Amino acid sequence: MNQLTVKNLVKKYRHTTVLDDISFTLEPAKIYGLLGRNGAGKTTLLNIISNRLFPTSGDVQIAGEDVNNNDALLSKIFLMSEVNLYPREMKINQTFDLADAAYGDFDYDLANRLLKTFELDGDAKVTNLSTGQRTASKIIVALAVNAEYVLLDEPILGLDANHREAFYQELVKTYQEKPRTFVLSTHLIEEIQQLVEHVLILDQHKIIVDDGLDSMLAKAYTISGPTKLVDDYVAGLKVLKTELMGNIKTTYIFDDLDDQRPIPDQVKINHYDLQHLFIYLTDGGEK
Amino acid sequence: MNQLTVKNLVKKYRHTTVLDDISFTLEPAKIYGLLGRNGAGKTTLLNIISNRLFPTSGDVQIAGEDVNNNDALLSKIFLMSEVNLYPREMKINQTFDLADAAYGDFDYDLANRLLKTFELDGDAKVTNLSTGQRTASKIIVALAVNAEYVLLDEPILGLDANHREAFYQELVKTYQEKPRTFVLSTHLIEEIQQLVEHVLILDQHKIIVDDGLDSMLAKAYTISGPTKLVDDYVAGLKVLKTELMGNIKTTYIFDDLDDQRPIPDQVKINHYDLQHLFIYLTDGGEK
Repeated sequence: MNQLTVKNLVKKYRHTTVLDDISFTLEPAKIYGLLGRNGAGKTTLLNIISNRLFPTSGDVQIAGEDVNNNDALLSKIFLMSEVNLYPREMKINQTFDLADAAYGDFDYDLANRLLKTFELDGDAKVTNLSTGQRTASKIIVALAVNAEYVLLDEPILGLDANHREAFYQELVKTYQEKPRTFVLSTHLIEEIQQLVEHVLILDQHKIIVDDGLDSMLAKAYTISGPTKLVDDYVAGLKVLKTELMGNIKTTYIFDDLDDQRPIPDQVKINHYDLQHLFIYLTDGGEK
Repeated sequence: MNQLTVKNLVKKYRHTTVLDDISFTLEPAKIYGLLGRNGAGKTTLLNIISNRLFPTSGDVQIAGEDVNNNDALLSKIFLMSEVNLYPREMKINQTFDLADAAYGDFDYDLANRLLKTFELDGDAKVTNLSTGQRTASKIIVALAVNAEYVLLDEPILGLDANHREAFYQELVKTYQEKPRTFVLSTHLIEEIQQLVEHVLILDQHKIIVDDGLDSMLAKAYTISGPTKLVDDYVAGLKVLKTELMGNIKTTYIFDDLDDQRPIPDQVKINHYDLQHLFIYLTDGGEK
């Protein structure tokens, strides 16, 4: 299996720049979280990677070759998107056949088992499904399709907590049995923190974070205590947010923690989670 | 302020029972979580309470009086729903005026501040908004409307993590300044656990839990350790789910924890969260 490389992607619509010189690499057999606020450009990026949209400039390569109009390479990339591309009369079972025809070796056993997990009838027409059921039917295709790069754009739309949990468990299971690359683009950051190994954050049309999850979380910690002591300690560190309650100041840091530095007794250090890190990084600084 | 009482509500459509003898009470000045799987009947229930739908039998009372067609009582109840009830050309600002006309004393100061929080233009037409923007515009009305009972049906649809966090913070703030009753119906259970004081769970068209959050969570704990010891300890307790890894058994309990009972050294007790409790309670037993 080969790397997928996104190189200097730019996408402009008249006066609007949606993607502004985006470069990153997707490694084989890894689970990525693609995070961004509404309107940051996530869907456009995924559409370009899967050749549904053309970039203004830049390209997407697998093993050094441009995927654009290269059917052999494009058959390694699958996109599950919010848009419903199926004809009106299509049944869920027929969407499996379509994925089999396009990508080969569709995992019908897995798909049929997942129909039961998500309480779906394979003979139901896709257009007659509720939002949650339609999402579930697309998840089944995305987990059973034979592709090395599976891109999931908002894969939890309309799912209740039980079906979201089932989706996360099935994703991990199929990934362990047959490692391939998944890119999860979702607003439910708290829930996917346990799944993703690497995080890409798209903000204001640029990639602002491209880092391993563990490495990111190690840099995300709060320093709290008496204002003076906290101010002294955090001098020179990147502070994302500050809270003051009486004389107790809490600062949210995103920076390397220096283990060698002595910490005053009254100062406490705690870690915080990916969702809050994301919010503070993309809120446009302190408010 | 007075209690709102739901009494023996039944709603049937031909051969389908959507609500099966539902009774509970909403206290003044309390935040409720109304939880249920897709199709459990939550939206129907909220529509009946706010008089948008008629029940097959049973009624909704405030201070012992039926709210049905009682304008004085209905003006105490506001429903924010997924359905868009506004005419095509309506601007966000005009939805504020509508809420003011219907309920009086609309909090325009709060609404105008929240327009900035959610990055909305008050002169924008509701039909031109994205899903997340439309949700935000409805949240503003729901937080600024002058009603004693504010029912929120899926109030986070399409919101990114930043705007969800802003919504939760603003809800707590307005609740503290002017206590009234909120009912939050949502699938994002993990996120609202910090907000709600009381939980109603609707499953298979019936209320299966009507309890304070703290009381519920006190009963939600895992017992894990060597199989034999765990089996002995949990005998007689309500077990929602069991996991086995080698000889280590983990059981998810929903029952009173007996502090007096000695716990074997090798057995560990941990609490688990509301979202998982909900999933295990509504998954139809062990799978």
